[in-house]
Amino acid sequence: MSQQKLWFMSDYMEGACPEIMEALAATNLEHTPGYGTDEYCEQAREKIKEALSCPAAEVHFLVGGTQTNATVIDALLKGYQGVIAAATGHINVHESGAIEFGGHKILALHQKLGKISAADIEARILAYNNDPSRDHTVMPGMVYISQPTEYGTLYSLKELQEISRICKVYGIYLYVDGARLAYALACPENDVTLKDLAQLADAFYIGGTKCGALFGEAVVFTKPGLAPHFVTTVKQHGAMLAKGRLLGVQFGTLFSRDKDGRLLYEKLGENGMRTAAKLRKAIESKGYRFLLDSPTNQIFVVMEDSRIEKLSQNVNFEFWERVDGTHSAVRFVTGWATTEEDIDGLAALL
Amino acid sequence: MSQQKLWFMSDYMEGACPEIMEALAATNLEHTPGYGTDEYCEQAREKIKEALSCPAAEVHFLVGGTQTNATVIDALLKGYQGVIAAATGHINVHESGAIEFGGHKILALHQKLGKISAADIEARILAYNNDPSRDHTVMPGMVYISQPTEYGTLYSLKELQEISRICKVYGIYLYVDGARLAYALACPENDVTLKDLAQLADAFYIGGTKCGALFGEAVVFTKPGLAPHFVTTVKQHGAMLAKGRLLGVQFGTLFSRDKDGRLLYEKLGENGMRTAAKLRKAIESKGYRFLLDSPTNQIFVVMEDSRIEKLSQNVNFEFWERVDGTHSAVRFVTGWATTEEDIDGLAALL
Amino acid sequence: MSQQKLWFMSDYMEGACPEIMEALAATNLEHTPGYGTDEYCEQAREKIKEALSCPAAEVHFLVGGTQTNATVIDALLKGYQGVIAAATGHINVHESGAIEFGGHKILALHQKLGKISAADIEARILAYNNDPSRDHTVMPGMVYISQPTEYGTLYSLKELQEISRICKVYGIYLYVDGARLAYALACPENDVTLKDLAQLADAFYIGGTKCGALFGEAVVFTKPGLAPHFVTTVKQHGAMLAKGRLLGVQFGTLFSRDKDGRLLYEKLGENGMRTAAKLRKAIESKGYRFLLDSPTNQIFVVMEDSRIEKLSQNVNFEFWERVDGTHSAVRFVTGWATTEEDIDGLAALL
Amino acid sequence: MSQQKLWFMSDYMEGACPEIMEALAATNLEHTPGYGTDEYCEQAREKIKEALSCPAAEVHFLVGGTQTNATVIDALLKGYQGVIAAATGHINVHESGAIEFGGHKILALHQKLGKISAADIEARILAYNNDPSRDHTVMPGMVYISQPTEYGTLYSLKELQEISRICKVYGIYLYVDGARLAYALACPENDVTLKDLAQLADAFYIGGTKCGALFGEAVVFTKPGLAPHFVTTVKQHGAMLAKGRLLGVQFGTLFSRDKDGRLLYEKLGENGMRTAAKLRKAIESKGYRFLLDSPTNQIFVVMEDSRIEKLSQNVNFEFWERVDGTHSAVRFVTGWATTEEDIDGLAALL
Repeated sequence: MSQQKLWFMSDYMEGACPEIMEALAATNLEHTPGYGTDEYCEQAREKIKEALSCPAAEVHFLVGGTQTNATVIDALLKGYQGVIAAATGHINVHESGAIEFGGHKILALHQKLGKISAADIEARILAYNNDPSRDHTVMPGMVYISQPTEYGTLYSLKELQEISRICKVYGIYLYVDGARLAYALACPENDVTLKDLAQLADAFYIGGTKCGALFGEAVVFTKPGLAPHFVTTVKQHGAMLAKGRLLGVQFGTLFSRDKDGRLLYEKLGENGMRTAAKLRKAIESKGYRFLLDSPTNQIFVVMEDSRIEKLSQNVNFEFWERVDGTHSAVRFVTGWATTEEDIDGLAALL
Repeated sequence: MSQQKLWFMSDYMEGACPEIMEALAATNLEHTPGYGTDEYCEQAREKIKEALSCPAAEVHFLVGGTQTNATVIDALLKGYQGVIAAATGHINVHESGAIEFGGHKILALHQKLGKISAADIEARILAYNNDPSRDHTVMPGMVYISQPTEYGTLYSLKELQEISRICKVYGIYLYVDGARLAYALACPENDVTLKDLAQLADAFYIGGTKCGALFGEAVVFTKPGLAPHFVTTVKQHGAMLAKGRLLGVQFGTLFSRDKDGRLLYEKLGENGMRTAAKLRKAIESKGYRFLLDSPTNQIFVVMEDSRIEKLSQNVNFEFWERVDGTHSAVRFVTGWATTEEDIDGLAALL
Repeated sequence: MSQQKLWFMSDYMEGACPEIMEALAATNLEHTPGYGTDEYCEQAREKIKEALSCPAAEVHFLVGGTQTNATVIDALLKGYQGVIAAATGHINVHESGAIEFGGHKILALHQKLGKISAADIEARILAYNNDPSRDHTVMPGMVYISQPTEYGTLYSLKELQEISRICKVYGIYLYVDGARLAYALACPENDVTLKDLAQLADAFYIGGTKCGALFGEAVVFTKPGLAPHFVTTVKQHGAMLAKGRLLGVQFGTLFSRDKDGRLLYEKLGENGMRTAAKLRKAIESKGYRFLLDSPTNQIFVVMEDSRIEKLSQNVNFEFWERVDGTHSAVRFVTGWATTEEDIDGLAALL
Repeated sequence: MSQQKLWFMSDYMEGACPEIMEALAATNLEHTPGYGTDEYCEQAREKIKEALSCPAAEVHFLVGGTQTNATVIDALLKGYQGVIAAATGHINVHESGAIEFGGHKILALHQKLGKISAADIEARILAYNNDPSRDHTVMPGMVYISQPTEYGTLYSLKELQEISRICKVYGIYLYVDGARLAYALACPENDVTLKDLAQLADAFYIGGTKCGALFGEAVVFTKPGLAPHFVTTVKQHGAMLAKGRLLGVQFGTLFSRDKDGRLLYEKLGENGMRTAAKLRKAIESKGYRFLLDSPTNQIFVVMEDSRIEKLSQNVNFEFWERVDGTHSAVRFVTGWATTEEDIDGLAALL
């Protein structure tokens, strides 16, 4: 349905990569115990820990991104704590208040291109520590960042190290939302590896939903024992899948290596980046201006409103924001499923 | 894996019925908008409303059973209200406290074979209404029942009508958990149809996870406007799937009719009931005693402990409870995926 | 107003004991910092710790009983835990669902005369520990008992020691609701001292509201560090008083010693017990039957309905429950403010 | 204690006005039913409704300000809604996350001197209404403002009318935090009366704690039926006082009229304003600069750090914020209890 249009709305508009569909079909009538206690989940956990070079990590598979954020944040925070995040962070704007439903305040920080700085984080923590009335305020207990951010930008390794250091100094958790992590990992400008994340963050999640899985995210606690009885917390927060093995089969597939030792997860990200690069080039060649410099698979372009109107007859994409009286910014997203033909088609319409 | 054993542990140990796997494969690379706004969801909603003869119903697709219960209950109750349920109700025993996480007390009632009576419900409501200190207690705002119950038993149409009437008289909601509804509908002893549910309950859910889907449940509000902004509530409670069309495709398939006009959902239930009947017969013929008279796809059998021990080497099933010094009750569950060969295999081992 | 009637409704129907009213008047126009950081609170804390022989204790002053229960329980429990309590426990029946509002399930136990047994507690913990599906249930994290209970009964020292031992063995908290603790301490049948409570419980509260204060309860954590940042939690749960010194002044007065070294708190309890004893005698002499044997300041009496009706024209008391077609049980409560004349007046009317 | 210093820290550093202390003493040993069902509460409610010229109003007495805000906001909002407030609003900064504990997000708006504008409120509502992804965000369900604000500033009648109009147009509630309302009402610059509040707001509270009461706030719902079963919600949120009559006696006293028909509440506010005016004059005459133009009883003054240091040896006041390398702003608060001698004393030290 609706196949006549080109789709650049987001990276979760299709099903799953063929390898996953095949693996699900191949295992469909097998019987396994539920809730992630099966062998497929166990194997996927091992593959992920190996990819992270972090044998002590605890890995859990949850249904989706909002579920994951709400569950991990509530599991790690005490009742009197809140989470520091960019004002533009997904948890602060697009999760229907799920974090507050769990009882925690989001301590929103000023951001630049979706990123917050170690200096601003430290200042926020010190503002609490130095406030004589701090008992009447919410204590920062965690820093939430996304990699890539909601603007498609990336934290550099140096930036992440600084944030991680500040978190350790003040004894609060660092949690990284990796909903689109595959595209960060595949980005030529990126210098933060999975292993870096495992060393620098207390917890993060490896996004499946937007990176080639039907659905599902892999939560990694990089040290054991951070979230006791996490399974109960997961179920309580609506993040549990009864047939947990569906997640195990998917992440086992995503973290399988080809004969050259490359992870499928990396290759899916690369498709998103390759098509994004091609699209970026086409946009530039047509003389459009970018709203901001976003190195991953989200591309923000300033266009005349009349052109946007016309383009939207043939292409699905997201209106982002008004720029001036006659121009607006729109967002094109490529992904694991974007084809060369999709880009050619869009380029022809630009 | 683990394929050498026979599986009677529960009805969610496999993937999905072949029709669903084919539909998911066929639509896999299509592009659709997310969160249930796609045409597959729309079509599935129409099919369900038609099957219910309830054109005014609102239908939503959620990820799983616990998510559904927690979301619907919190959406319909006021903050000062709780939910009446059997002490053995799934929400009271096996949902990790998800209802209380949402802030609501479960007002547990005495049950018989998993069922609560209209008389006991009315008495509970009156106990509140007549309590001069009722402002200091939790007001009953809903009745939760499951059809079939956690013991595999069924509410008769008459019982359901009585409960529905009491709910209407006192102005509280009736919500029916249909996690295993397909097996209720297919049970020869059952006289409650989908249309009856649509007329008698304010809300109920049609279980997918245990009835042939990979995952997913279809929530039905039988009157419009009961839960405004329900989508936001769904997301907040962790019950939202980004690629909502996966649920639409599945329920569209489950509610497709064959050339004789029969729903796939009904036929999947019938397989569960047919194999259950065959198994019940085998158990009887071997001289075992049933723990209780359960007409659907859960069969509770009393066995000598030594026999249970031995049987468990070749069969996966659930230990239920100790009966006496040398006997215990165990549970065998059949389902949409159970084969005649499975039953023959188990019968040979009994 | 309404002074013509005799009042035996409960022990919080008057203001405060004269000593407290005087202390509040004497300090009324002094300036102090807020929220319990003043010297009166500090002095009261020291007096309480001295009375407990527990110098390591942490003492906090909260507004009322429900606030205290909701705050302490949520402060000590993890999100995935619930609290074991008698089905008749105040938190389970008369706190408007405040514990569930905080996200925790009450794991109600069968009780006898308001008391639960160490054996039943252990069985409940083992039921969780031995349940292969325990991850899907609520983990017991605390035992809540009240001393005296809602039926006016008392845990003996031996019973309390056994419960405390079970809690230690299984690593869960023991918390004692002492809303009416003064009457327990003053009861001739009681053998549990304040010092015993400090040794056996992880937390308890010394009731002020029902024991001679205008309002307020003193929470005792018997070991330091159990509830970090408790002040924030207190405020979040609505249990904080801005002018905290009002609580310090009151508890400093209640825990002042007379020239014989006796605490005012003990003497207020003794008044409640002395008048209760006198009333019990009067009731017996009139030939009434007690509903149950309650040794403290709540007296449950079985009466003919016609007599109850008539008595209620001159006396305020609580209807408790119907006993048979012509009899009901009622409750008379004495307290710190009950006078000999009150008892004589009631006796004359019985 | 600590009486040697002058106190300008805040307006809740003392007990209660003498009239209240007398009324509490006079009624101390009377017996009344609890939880606000007594005649004193009833009389106080009538006096308040008369002062508001709003006979249809519902009036409830709660323990303190944070309790009141958390309770009213949760009572009026649906689970999927949040509350628009100034970023500097008390609920957003100094209530320990109590609003989020109740599950609601605070939608913080840019403010000027503690105030938000009708235009910004409308823009925020429209941002939600016009967002195609609004289902994934938190719906604005209420506007929270404080009168006077946390900076001591006032909404004019015109501003309040505009905000009220916007709320009505878009169907969301207007709630006014009147923690220091007596000082607003007594301010010469103020043109918003109690009757205006009753006409323009859906709910507001008349602050007692900071305006001459020992503690307590009077919640006014200006139309009946806005918050059904509010008493249960109050108790659940920790805002209930067992001996409710203490609040009735206090508010009955505060809303008593003298022979000239003036409310004690007004006169207490006038004392705060008279002493504030005198202090403001003294500060000006000494050549200090005000941080901002605050017309009520909070005075923000810029001083050299060395002078602040010295002054703090004899005066208790609050450090507000650093202004430059050698200056900071401090806050002096007068109140119902401030005397002319206090001002003379402070003036001499400036």
